[in-house]
Amino acid sequence: MTDQKPLGFQDIRDEVVNRIQTRVWPQGSLLPTEMELAAEFGVARATVNRALRELAEQGIVTRKRKGGTRVVTTPVKQAKLPITVVRQTIEEMNAEYRYALVSRTLIDCPAWLQAKLNIPEGAQVVHLQCMHHADNRPFQFEERWINVSTVPQVLDEDFLTTGPNEWLLSEVPFSNAEIAFSAVPATGHLQEFLAVPPGTPLFQLERTTWFRSDPVTFVRMTFHQGYQMRTTY
Amino acid sequence: MTDQKPLGFQDIRDEVVNRIQTRVWPQGSLLPTEMELAAEFGVARATVNRALRELAEQGIVTRKRKGGTRVVTTPVKQAKLPITVVRQTIEEMNAEYRYALVSRTLIDCPAWLQAKLNIPEGAQVVHLQCMHHADNRPFQFEERWINVSTVPQVLDEDFLTTGPNEWLLSEVPFSNAEIAFSAVPATGHLQEFLAVPPGTPLFQLERTTWFRSDPVTFVRMTFHQGYQMRTTY
Repeated sequence: MTDQKPLGFQDIRDEVVNRIQTRVWPQGSLLPTEMELAAEFGVARATVNRALRELAEQGIVTRKRKGGTRVVTTPVKQAKLPITVVRQTIEEMNAEYRYALVSRTLIDCPAWLQAKLNIPEGAQVVHLQCMHHADNRPFQFEERWINVSTVPQVLDEDFLTTGPNEWLLSEVPFSNAEIAFSAVPATGHLQEFLAVPPGTPLFQLERTTWFRSDPVTFVRMTFHQGYQMRTTY
Repeated sequence: MTDQKPLGFQDIRDEVVNRIQTRVWPQGSLLPTEMELAAEFGVARATVNRALRELAEQGIVTRKRKGGTRVVTTPVKQAKLPITVVRQTIEEMNAEYRYALVSRTLIDCPAWLQAKLNIPEGAQVVHLQCMHHADNRPFQFEERWINVSTVPQVLDEDFLTTGPNEWLLSEVPFSNAEIAFSAVPATGHLQEFLAVPPGTPLFQLERTTWFRSDPVTFVRMTFHQGYQMRTTY
């Protein structure tokens, strides 16, 4: 540091980062006070404050009104996966979206789904299979079961022009869901509709949705070969 | 409704939910005021308030101090994926965690990784391969590259007893990352270390991490056959 040119907040910020990276100030440690840092760097306290605020916004330090500034410890960060409708995903790729209904049947709830959703015996569900295309190539095969007793209006919907995901979002202000991601081999319908050799690894997302404690729907969305779901944190 | 027994907040809450589900009050619509609802149900305003507060906490309605209470519109919900260390995941399954280093080499950064991380030519990276076991069965194969210029202390670490994920979390208070999930076929090392037939679909998570703008690490974590990553929202 020279005393020709006063330090800016960026210089303070970069020096703080440097000391954290080189573990002069290890994780969880308390930094000197703003007053002390201002004195060390020969700047106004406001300059130090601005540098530390920026680092707090970046998640590098945490600040408490009376507890001072600390280097974050092992951050328990969370990745966020926005729940989008497949139409949006495809349109955001600047591809043309096309939806096609494969089948729609009203059936007695199968035993495995009764158990999964905790539905009473004898309940009915609408079973749907549909395809979502991007620029006329297979993008996602969707297989879905909708609980008639929670969503009785499903009986009047033919799903010929609108996919069940979009329809449900407009009908049911759902409140919670469970999601599972996995890799599955292409068999039967998946192989056929996604146009891949048998056994091809495919990315699959399963989601169960409740409105309060009432089961709404279970869906299995299987994506085309090579699909990557991306997010940041 | 009878006038023998006064309604509790649970009754009000359930009736509000019922009206939302049956679209008496559709998505985005404004509910009557607390005063109006209290008059309709013959209860104190505080009882209505408690019912609506609970529904707001459940994400079914939104409330604004002057704007009243509205049914939520298509919720843009986000699933949260906590970024956990594999040791934790395994220990939470009540399984015994075992880590094994497969290889550790100091190499010139390969061209594809230079491009991916935007690292200058001639940079060095530590390349690691390791296995994580749960109750002595293969759980995850980890392949990782660590940027020496961002994390110079990696040169002194042998990774014999601690996995690089845990080590990095304690060394680098990282600030941001990109994640990609996909399904890949088992080949080469994956097939061998995860003990599966060639071509078996495997769930893979790739993550690139930066500390501010400095690339820290790229990792490819491939899970055992049948693994499901789960979350809720």
